[in-house]
Amino acid sequence: MAERMTLIMFSGDMDKALAAFNLAIGAASIGMEVSMFFTFWGLNVIKKNEGPIKSKGIMRKMLNFMNRGGAKRLGLSKFHMFGMGKWMMGKLMKDTRFPSPQELMTTAHQSGVKFIACTTSMGIMGIGKEAFVSEVDSYAGVATYLADARDGRINLFI
Amino acid sequence: MAERMTLIMFSGDMDKALAAFNLAIGAASIGMEVSMFFTFWGLNVIKKNEGPIKSKGIMRKMLNFMNRGGAKRLGLSKFHMFGMGKWMMGKLMKDTRFPSPQELMTTAHQSGVKFIACTTSMGIMGIGKEAFVSEVDSYAGVATYLADARDGRINLFI
Amino acid sequence: MAERMTLIMFSGDMDKALAAFNLAIGAASIGMEVSMFFTFWGLNVIKKNEGPIKSKGIMRKMLNFMNRGGAKRLGLSKFHMFGMGKWMMGKLMKDTRFPSPQELMTTAHQSGVKFIACTTSMGIMGIGKEAFVSEVDSYAGVATYLADARDGRINLFI
Repeated sequence: MAERMTLIMFSGDMDKALAAFNLAIGAASIGMEVSMFFTFWGLNVIKKNEGPIKSKGIMRKMLNFMNRGGAKRLGLSKFHMFGMGKWMMGKLMKDTRFPSPQELMTTAHQSGVKFIACTTSMGIMGIGKEAFVSEVDSYAGVATYLADARDGRINLFI
Repeated sequence: MAERMTLIMFSGDMDKALAAFNLAIGAASIGMEVSMFFTFWGLNVIKKNEGPIKSKGIMRKMLNFMNRGGAKRLGLSKFHMFGMGKWMMGKLMKDTRFPSPQELMTTAHQSGVKFIACTTSMGIMGIGKEAFVSEVDSYAGVATYLADARDGRINLFI
Repeated sequence: MAERMTLIMFSGDMDKALAAFNLAIGAASIGMEVSMFFTFWGLNVIKKNEGPIKSKGIMRKMLNFMNRGGAKRLGLSKFHMFGMGKWMMGKLMKDTRFPSPQELMTTAHQSGVKFIACTTSMGIMGIGKEAFVSEVDSYAGVATYLADARDGRINLFI
């Protein structure tokens, strides 16, 4: 059995997503099994970039609007400065030819990294499966995470 | 010996506390030993909801007032918006019958999850044992954490 | 072979740095090997306190100015309040004779904790080796982290 790494992607921040995808791709490239569990704000990372999200109820609609997500729209955990920090970071990454979160997500998936969306968070936020990118492999709860993580060599909460 | 999970609860954010209690309850339900170490802002999660905190010195009093804690008062790590984000999240959780942080804390404790308050943080912040809820099992420092975590199958920093 | 702990120091917040150094020193004191990987905002923790940072390009200059770092300048993850939270925390730590981040960094290094700066983050942010304190042992990427962490008993993302 291959060694395993699990990542709980709780945060929806672009910088943390970059770090997580980088770790995931690195681990996959040395033959580790990698599972990424997207929960809470982390669900934003794997939301589609386009189209309105169909959630029921006015408050869910509001929450989902503010929280639209999609790998293109993620903010930074620091230096928001009305989006300037993000714009600068994007520019720097482009200058250094560092891949965007979207490109890293695709690469991670192609490297065999498994993407799991947390059904509990989806339930609270009223988000259905149609909101997510096609790279999501499965929809599951805490039991699935624990089954993977108890045999994981590296388990991180990001 | 049962498999163990340890969680360092550094954050005092409601959303992260929900995630942590959910993980703890899930792990306990499959027979894992779970220790939760509350440190820094995480101490807010296990503070009593009522009553003034008796801390010595004007600055500690100020810090503890701003930082009152109690599972009822926790904010979100995102979307504060003058409390609106928290109110919306509370409403959504009620609508979906998702338990509150307080209910999850009680359930976790009843499932055998151990609650440990960090004595180093308590010292810096000038908080005594009387500030905490009765579910706290013990008061300890980093050595106790390491003793638990070195044999842990899953160790997370939240 | 000694048991190992690895810490990814992603955050540049003073409070998280205190927690990380405390864990590192505790683990080293019971004979564990400890590696701290400083990445993204965490690079601020190991930047020199003085002198201009020589980065190329106006945007990198701006990012590095806003993000000057040095263990003396770290902010808190909560309660910024225009620096007041940090000032209060510093005062409380002084009152309780708790060591500063800088002192903890020195102690950690003297205890044998290894400091590794992430070359990928350095590349994006345009920071060279001359920006960092002399305690930094090496400069490496994700492969080095994974090699250490896959045999780690405790691996945390902070």
